[in-house]
Amino acid sequence: MFESAELGHKLSKGQYKRIEPKLRVDLLNAQYQLSQLGKFPVIVLISGVRGAGKGETVNLLNEWMDPRHIHTHAFDNPSDEESERPPMWRYWRALPPKGKIGILFGSWYTAPIIDRVFGRAKARDLLHAVEEINRFEKMLADDGALILKFWFHLSKKAQRKRLKALESDRETRWRVTARDWSFFKLYDRFSRVSEDALRQTSTAWAPWIVVEGSDPEYRAVTAGKTLLEAMKKRLSAWPERRSKKSDAAPLVQPVDKLHILDRLDLSHTLPKKRYQKELAALQGELAKLTRHPKFPQHTVVLVFEGMDAAGKGGAIRRITGAIDARLYHTIPIAAPTDEERAQPYLWRFWRHLPRKGRFVIYDRSWYGRVLVERVEGFAAEADWLRAYSEINDFEQQLARNGAIVAKFWLQISKQEQYRRFKEREKTRFKQFKITPEDWRNRERWDAYQVAAADMIERTGTGHAPWTLIGANDKYHARVKILDTLARALRARLKG
Amino acid sequence: MFESAELGHKLSKGQYKRIEPKLRVDLLNAQYQLSQLGKFPVIVLISGVRGAGKGETVNLLNEWMDPRHIHTHAFDNPSDEESERPPMWRYWRALPPKGKIGILFGSWYTAPIIDRVFGRAKARDLLHAVEEINRFEKMLADDGALILKFWFHLSKKAQRKRLKALESDRETRWRVTARDWSFFKLYDRFSRVSEDALRQTSTAWAPWIVVEGSDPEYRAVTAGKTLLEAMKKRLSAWPERRSKKSDAAPLVQPVDKLHILDRLDLSHTLPKKRYQKELAALQGELAKLTRHPKFPQHTVVLVFEGMDAAGKGGAIRRITGAIDARLYHTIPIAAPTDEERAQPYLWRFWRHLPRKGRFVIYDRSWYGRVLVERVEGFAAEADWLRAYSEINDFEQQLARNGAIVAKFWLQISKQEQYRRFKEREKTRFKQFKITPEDWRNRERWDAYQVAAADMIERTGTGHAPWTLIGANDKYHARVKILDTLARALRARLKG
Repeated sequence: MFESAELGHKLSKGQYKRIEPKLRVDLLNAQYQLSQLGKFPVIVLISGVRGAGKGETVNLLNEWMDPRHIHTHAFDNPSDEESERPPMWRYWRALPPKGKIGILFGSWYTAPIIDRVFGRAKARDLLHAVEEINRFEKMLADDGALILKFWFHLSKKAQRKRLKALESDRETRWRVTARDWSFFKLYDRFSRVSEDALRQTSTAWAPWIVVEGSDPEYRAVTAGKTLLEAMKKRLSAWPERRSKKSDAAPLVQPVDKLHILDRLDLSHTLPKKRYQKELAALQGELAKLTRHPKFPQHTVVLVFEGMDAAGKGGAIRRITGAIDARLYHTIPIAAPTDEERAQPYLWRFWRHLPRKGRFVIYDRSWYGRVLVERVEGFAAEADWLRAYSEINDFEQQLARNGAIVAKFWLQISKQEQYRRFKEREKTRFKQFKITPEDWRNRERWDAYQVAAADMIERTGTGHAPWTLIGANDKYHARVKILDTLARALRARLKG
Repeated sequence: MFESAELGHKLSKGQYKRIEPKLRVDLLNAQYQLSQLGKFPVIVLISGVRGAGKGETVNLLNEWMDPRHIHTHAFDNPSDEESERPPMWRYWRALPPKGKIGILFGSWYTAPIIDRVFGRAKARDLLHAVEEINRFEKMLADDGALILKFWFHLSKKAQRKRLKALESDRETRWRVTARDWSFFKLYDRFSRVSEDALRQTSTAWAPWIVVEGSDPEYRAVTAGKTLLEAMKKRLSAWPERRSKKSDAAPLVQPVDKLHILDRLDLSHTLPKKRYQKELAALQGELAKLTRHPKFPQHTVVLVFEGMDAAGKGGAIRRITGAIDARLYHTIPIAAPTDEERAQPYLWRFWRHLPRKGRFVIYDRSWYGRVLVERVEGFAAEADWLRAYSEINDFEQQLARNGAIVAKFWLQISKQEQYRRFKEREKTRFKQFKITPEDWRNRERWDAYQVAAADMIERTGTGHAPWTLIGANDKYHARVKILDTLARALRARLKG
């Protein structure tokens, strides 16, 4: 991939002077159009070898355009808040909102490539990383993001010359460090690993743009023009893009209409006395498990989904009642805020991920995408269909980072829901819990059941399993949930 | 203040059992009312001595109420992201939005008290901290927050007994550390320092509630009832609260209508040739200053204010053009997002404060409170009047943390603004810059000038000075701004 970036591309100063003023104006204009449309972000990755003009390009783009609408992030070593979360957390944090340009200097490519160059990672680790990156970028692209990945390249000879030149100038000497030379010694290996990684991540939705870095004028104009053309193309194509239909085969429902949830036994009950005893025992065990010496190495991520009035809140409070309040956050998911709406839908769940040694409990979750958003048509078919694998990727990242993930679907019968709705309407302090929307959702009971069955089938994994809870009897449901959670913790902490 | 919390307050288990169920229901109800109203947050501080039931109270409040609407934050040692910002940053981060309850376990009181107990701070440092805290809490209260500060107390004898009891129980032994006993040895000193601090911060808007901590039932019911009554009182009083008028004497304008801005010489000009030369020299110097070995210890906070079309954007770009793009963030201030609207108005500026070694450039700023919000009536008189001192407090915290703060007011004449508006309307790629709102604002020219003059007078400080820029000539303005900035940096880095 680097051959054409070793040809000695050049642009004369005269040519540059003719091109640059118009390019600046056009870029500014594209930027304001992007901002006024406010429908998609532009994500610019700046990567490549040392001395190839990465920093200069970032500065130039900021100078040419309006820096008020550019978010530039340079990634160095992760902060302690970052290093206690999955590696991608710091990049999610830095994603530009719709309408803005985000320039990422250093990116999700840095660690996999460096780790491989220095032998800390095997070939198959890199392969694995590459696959994950492709899926991540696909998700961004599907969400509308325009992704431009620049790789600034120098031939070995050119890099040596460049480092020497920087070193010999009093003004720029500070920029060359021992680390740069130690990297240079590994030039061939670095080049081979990068080329591999680039080839495998140069996708239709996020292709790499390799730029020869030795001539500043050529480099600058290439980066600027590429960005401009990509923005113009996307801006002009925008209106049509939105009317997207999925080309996928439809999810076919079982012809006998029998779903996994129909087979769930809802007749279990637990007498109050036994409930109180078992609850106390389980809460005691849970409390103890949070003081296990290994607990601070894990995050516990709990997801609660279920039909309205299935008892999610009550179950959550039986868990939180057992844990020190400093150790958990409960995140009730309601309508997204406007900051959240300007980001990919998983963003608002990523942002709440806690540091290690903590619980985070989602009362409704990212599964809204394939439940309410699917059923009510808030998400296009193409969008909720791809959510299954996006969600699996997300949860896999959590698990790999040491998270203990447990997901609960609380199932009640349609009759039981009716009984609970009526009871809520009668009880003064429960009235806030029942709204006309609940009654409306109830009318779509069957559609929700189909969606839930699909969800459970497509997102139940070994590292993030669904537990189906027959919840007609609250006592039974709560004990089953606590028991499942305690088992999961025990298996990880003591296993 | 602690005398009445050493009386041996008690509640029998029987009494507790009678009171508790109703208290829970009432608290839940108050919580939902709070959430539905969505107009103010409740901030609960949990402080006091070790073993007095702080943790138990936090857990109980979370158990009694709906944890989905409670944000509990425990503050231990600051993370590295926190320790590079002013000490209050981590608390601003944790403030609950309107409609929610925030429980802060550990708070802005912890460090000042501990530092004084261990002799790391002098008496006058504590006094100073106390004054700052009072102003901070006043700001929160003025913004509508209901603040409850609980101090859980134990007599010396009771504390010793409590620690011994914890230690002798196999289940709770882990909770007592060597640190607890080392604190206990300082009981008298700790008690004296805390009592002092509490007395001086027990204000009308945020009084301390000292609770005897030895009896769990008494402690729990006292905390619960106090919180409930405070919420009920505030919720019922809400509608009237909003019709608040300032009792302050009005800001009197000079009877001759002569303002500081009228005296500003707008006739300065700079020929293009000299501009280019001086600009290049200043940008070069600025770039060098950012590589000064002391630079990474400072944050640079720049504020740009001025009438529409005064040239703020252009000036900012002449600064950013000189600096590595990784070192600055430009924050254009537009309408607040809904997450920002749910917080005190300074919150959205606090959130953008960078780590050390960085520039943050606010294109319009917190001064909107005393400019546009004052002139257009978006903020009540009482609110913008108090903003002057709130802003001074904010900037003082920045300065004390090592920030270099520079504020620029760009002044143009009314005729020059007209000329620029017309020019913008004519130039295709500048049209986005001119809106009907700009013309409307122009009609209030005089009111804005009066507001600006008041602002400059009341918020110009040694550590965060205003520089008034005659900006009819853009070249002159930009050079003056860069020169001022370079001087400020030089003084701090080389001084």
